[in-house]
Amino acid sequence: MNFSSDTSAPAHPKVIEAMAAANTGPAGSYGGDPLTAGLRARLAEVFETEDFDYWLVASGTAANALALACFCPPTGAVLCHEEAHIERDERGAPEFFSGGAKLRLLTGFGARIDRDVLEAELAGINRPFVHGTPADVLSLTNLTECGTAYSAAEVALYARLAHEKGLAVHLDGARLANVLASSKASAADMTWRAGVDVLSFGLTKTGAIGCEIIVLFGKAREKFGELQARAKRAGHMPAKMRFLAAQAHAMLEDGLWLTLAGHANAMAKGLASAVLSAGFEIAYPVDGNEVFPFLPKEAATRLRAAGAVSYPWPGGSSRFVCSWTTTPEDIEAFTRVLAGT
Amino acid sequence: MNFSSDTSAPAHPKVIEAMAAANTGPAGSYGGDPLTAGLRARLAEVFETEDFDYWLVASGTAANALALACFCPPTGAVLCHEEAHIERDERGAPEFFSGGAKLRLLTGFGARIDRDVLEAELAGINRPFVHGTPADVLSLTNLTECGTAYSAAEVALYARLAHEKGLAVHLDGARLANVLASSKASAADMTWRAGVDVLSFGLTKTGAIGCEIIVLFGKAREKFGELQARAKRAGHMPAKMRFLAAQAHAMLEDGLWLTLAGHANAMAKGLASAVLSAGFEIAYPVDGNEVFPFLPKEAATRLRAAGAVSYPWPGGSSRFVCSWTTTPEDIEAFTRVLAGT
Amino acid sequence: MNFSSDTSAPAHPKVIEAMAAANTGPAGSYGGDPLTAGLRARLAEVFETEDFDYWLVASGTAANALALACFCPPTGAVLCHEEAHIERDERGAPEFFSGGAKLRLLTGFGARIDRDVLEAELAGINRPFVHGTPADVLSLTNLTECGTAYSAAEVALYARLAHEKGLAVHLDGARLANVLASSKASAADMTWRAGVDVLSFGLTKTGAIGCEIIVLFGKAREKFGELQARAKRAGHMPAKMRFLAAQAHAMLEDGLWLTLAGHANAMAKGLASAVLSAGFEIAYPVDGNEVFPFLPKEAATRLRAAGAVSYPWPGGSSRFVCSWTTTPEDIEAFTRVLAGT
Amino acid sequence: MNFSSDTSAPAHPKVIEAMAAANTGPAGSYGGDPLTAGLRARLAEVFETEDFDYWLVASGTAANALALACFCPPTGAVLCHEEAHIERDERGAPEFFSGGAKLRLLTGFGARIDRDVLEAELAGINRPFVHGTPADVLSLTNLTECGTAYSAAEVALYARLAHEKGLAVHLDGARLANVLASSKASAADMTWRAGVDVLSFGLTKTGAIGCEIIVLFGKAREKFGELQARAKRAGHMPAKMRFLAAQAHAMLEDGLWLTLAGHANAMAKGLASAVLSAGFEIAYPVDGNEVFPFLPKEAATRLRAAGAVSYPWPGGSSRFVCSWTTTPEDIEAFTRVLAGT
Repeated sequence: MNFSSDTSAPAHPKVIEAMAAANTGPAGSYGGDPLTAGLRARLAEVFETEDFDYWLVASGTAANALALACFCPPTGAVLCHEEAHIERDERGAPEFFSGGAKLRLLTGFGARIDRDVLEAELAGINRPFVHGTPADVLSLTNLTECGTAYSAAEVALYARLAHEKGLAVHLDGARLANVLASSKASAADMTWRAGVDVLSFGLTKTGAIGCEIIVLFGKAREKFGELQARAKRAGHMPAKMRFLAAQAHAMLEDGLWLTLAGHANAMAKGLASAVLSAGFEIAYPVDGNEVFPFLPKEAATRLRAAGAVSYPWPGGSSRFVCSWTTTPEDIEAFTRVLAGT
Repeated sequence: MNFSSDTSAPAHPKVIEAMAAANTGPAGSYGGDPLTAGLRARLAEVFETEDFDYWLVASGTAANALALACFCPPTGAVLCHEEAHIERDERGAPEFFSGGAKLRLLTGFGARIDRDVLEAELAGINRPFVHGTPADVLSLTNLTECGTAYSAAEVALYARLAHEKGLAVHLDGARLANVLASSKASAADMTWRAGVDVLSFGLTKTGAIGCEIIVLFGKAREKFGELQARAKRAGHMPAKMRFLAAQAHAMLEDGLWLTLAGHANAMAKGLASAVLSAGFEIAYPVDGNEVFPFLPKEAATRLRAAGAVSYPWPGGSSRFVCSWTTTPEDIEAFTRVLAGT
Repeated sequence: MNFSSDTSAPAHPKVIEAMAAANTGPAGSYGGDPLTAGLRARLAEVFETEDFDYWLVASGTAANALALACFCPPTGAVLCHEEAHIERDERGAPEFFSGGAKLRLLTGFGARIDRDVLEAELAGINRPFVHGTPADVLSLTNLTECGTAYSAAEVALYARLAHEKGLAVHLDGARLANVLASSKASAADMTWRAGVDVLSFGLTKTGAIGCEIIVLFGKAREKFGELQARAKRAGHMPAKMRFLAAQAHAMLEDGLWLTLAGHANAMAKGLASAVLSAGFEIAYPVDGNEVFPFLPKEAATRLRAAGAVSYPWPGGSSRFVCSWTTTPEDIEAFTRVLAGT
Repeated sequence: MNFSSDTSAPAHPKVIEAMAAANTGPAGSYGGDPLTAGLRARLAEVFETEDFDYWLVASGTAANALALACFCPPTGAVLCHEEAHIERDERGAPEFFSGGAKLRLLTGFGARIDRDVLEAELAGINRPFVHGTPADVLSLTNLTECGTAYSAAEVALYARLAHEKGLAVHLDGARLANVLASSKASAADMTWRAGVDVLSFGLTKTGAIGCEIIVLFGKAREKFGELQARAKRAGHMPAKMRFLAAQAHAMLEDGLWLTLAGHANAMAKGLASAVLSAGFEIAYPVDGNEVFPFLPKEAATRLRAAGAVSYPWPGGSSRFVCSWTTTPEDIEAFTRVLAGT
């Protein structure tokens, strides 16, 4: 009954099995192996396009920072929500990888950038004014840090607004599977069809050991050489890359990633129901696998005592995260403890 | 009969087994798991000391660049051999991580820094001269890029010379196992007892999937907080670190790392014998698992046709690398093909 | 009647005279000249201490960025007001010089950091939490970007709060002369006695051509070698530094800097009186040489037509800056035009 | 009789006069003044083209590092001579400004890159090989650090070779005036007509206080916006830029820069004659204003005692630099002292 994070969960057994299966004989290093090459076909199926390039890394921070650095020069800025992972939880990785670009922090309820705030920010961009630092990238997160979602239409709208002002669009999809599973939008609709130029496609939180895929769509593919060079010099070109690729294959085969995310979402729905039934409020809409209840001290203590680990959140709520390993029994136990029965 | 690189080899089965065994239940993320904590005892045994701190990363480039950045300020320089991996094969990673420090390239036969060259360089350091870029770190590689070794006494001498001029000492030990297996020196004698401040302790080439341990010894431990912060912002703090730790446990248990390296070294000795028997010269002493024969075109073609993949090396030789997977049958086949029988 | 900026003004004639006087015979380059050395005595007098080191640069951005980079590691953050020059007008210079540190933006009326906001921010610092980016420096600006002032007591309070949490204190004193002239505080009281560790002491806006002095006080002097090295590699160690030093001598001799700033302040008081007399409001207290009136379109147009250039300011006011060249006649003319008489 | 450096010399009186003349009334700051704009016509005359953009900075290190950073990405390298100023005397400025690019050091007599060495280096560039760091810029210095010159034809040849491999060409012209005065080549022939993309056009050593002009030619002009942004964030956009522009006007008017350099060159010729007459050898051809004699200890001591300051040089010679202030009497005195008469 551990709800601290989906990164506390183990990997799905198929991931380990795929790695074991990949562990035979020599293979080209640094991505020159058949498993890495074979991901092209699989990703083409997922994203319903051939017009992309991809690179595998082992951490979401690396995926985000490498993606941003390819599109934001050191003299520029990235627009993101003030609660975005790239601002709050990556120890300045975007600044490091970009060579000193700024993050410009936008506001909005539930870690979603408010449309008016975005439009005002974009309207204020004055590229010829050399003293200021104009934005070059808009970074959205979906599922957001507060477990809320942008619809595919909203991503498309925001991307269009950004493109009109010359910004590239990055999507931090550490929990992309969760938002796709809950919204029933297709991966294509939520990304390149909506105008996303570069995607951090996370599989770690969904069930891999450590596997994130940077995907460049369409015109953004011209950055692929730079992306590889930046990955290499950042230590994100592991010699035995076949083992990253094996994880991706396992997760993407037969839609396992969506199945696992759908399960985690369902568990979160159950957890949310329990919270509401017990008479407590929830801070944000539950659009994926995260629930942020406002719990009185007494209830929080009781849950902790019962092993229901959570994470304190700014604003007074607590974050409960469900993963592929969360069971209906966990939710039942949570419900019982919270109800105090 | 693939001799292209020890990174083309698969991982040892025990590594996969350990990862599978680690894949149960929730565990603290970002290094807060028992397997990562448990490495302290194991490393204490390997290095015969308690006076160290450690951090796990998945690539050798990351290990080297993080280690160097903690000891070389942006205004400084790192002394290394002109053929060192940090100069030749890391796409400027040390410059990136350090914020723009220089590598100052020293010469010497077989990728070993010549003592006179080192002493002259150290003698020329003039810290108050603000226009120049004084060295802050000496980086040695053992086993070197040419498969040669420094003895523990040589490392100790070089470290003493460096310390006398205020430099920290880094050891790139991507193939530390090979040099220990061949020299019979202890890990302690080759590292902290010789004056090494920070070690990139590689296990990937020896048989892991991707597991390198940055080890800070003695006074260098004061950099541990900085090392963690730098690792985090470089994307080298994977969420599910238990799977890196599991690899390290598997490799270090019962001396598997030394056994595997010893085997690779023995295969290289056999390969070298075959070369000499066939009447060809070898460019450098064979101190580990790498052999650099000068092969006439005809012989090289014949080997390639038979599947004995190698890597062209500056200076006209070819690099043949043996790994834990190289078999006596491989060496026999190599011998036969080279002898033309 | 140009009020666009104090940087639009020419230099005081004594500055040019001093440079002409310095232009005789050979002199040590890169700061090894007697004029640069002679500044020590003059600064000792200004700051009533011998316990400092100093470095001359030609731009305020350089002074701020070099100062911050010595105290904020790439893994850290600088606390500053959201309207601070280092955030708004330096194109990411602090991020560049520091190697990718963050600016954390605090709020408060009139570009002054609110005490409660500062205390809350400081209380939230959690250094062991590796994912976040803890602050290492508090940067105050006095006179602020909105022409308001911190008292020496306020600087001392804020510095104490910052020091208690392990932060260094930087003061951007691009208009230090103005705040000293208006508050009658001594340079010592406003800087090192208040706990300022490193000061950007600006003379350009006061009347020099381009001369800012980075001053390290007390324990901060241990950064002097690093400061020089960083200045050198940033191109801020001009060969013929005597000409920077000559400017500083001219400005500091007989208190010219305070006289000029006092004059500019007095002109601003006159300008503010004219605004109030004409029935318009002023956005911020006039603590120095800047006035931010809210002007109706008609009045603004009339002023512009009469040559009274100003600068539009966020929030709807206009910035009018007085300099050492502003004359009582300018203020009279401004008054007449505004009164429409 | 100070021969330590041309940067020890004062500025030419016309430079100070021009600054004094510029010191009247308000003027647009940050380059928005008529003097800065007026340089376009003057530079068009010097370089016989309209197809250029320019930016003024106060130090040669800044000019070089800004120029290189616009053409060398962080993942790339700059080819230069191992004795180049950018390598030896700028404390890692190119690495800092570029975000961690490498300098790759080439050899050749007298600080001139050897053609064969250059061709071998260019031939070895393998851009698809992601582990290496391919060169993006060739940086030549003319006059070189050893006082030798490339002819315009040589610059053109080297630039053609570099362009064929996709490199941009930078010319460090800190002493461009000297090489033009001695070779009688035109500024156009030595720069853009020879294929130079970006020039550091130095006037400081020739006689200014501190004034270097970065000139982008032809297609390189597309980097102008980036250059300005980089200059701003590096603190190299001084508010009162008119005073830099005034220096440039004074130096370029009526060919003063070439007259002064021609004088310095003539003095160096005289100094060299004195050395040879006294029976001593000179290390390098005297193509400009620098002479590197090998002096026996006794002669060196005698000269020093007489005030003839020089600078020890790697390889055992001493550097004597003549400037616009060196007089025939200085050379006569030097001759007498050296002759021991």
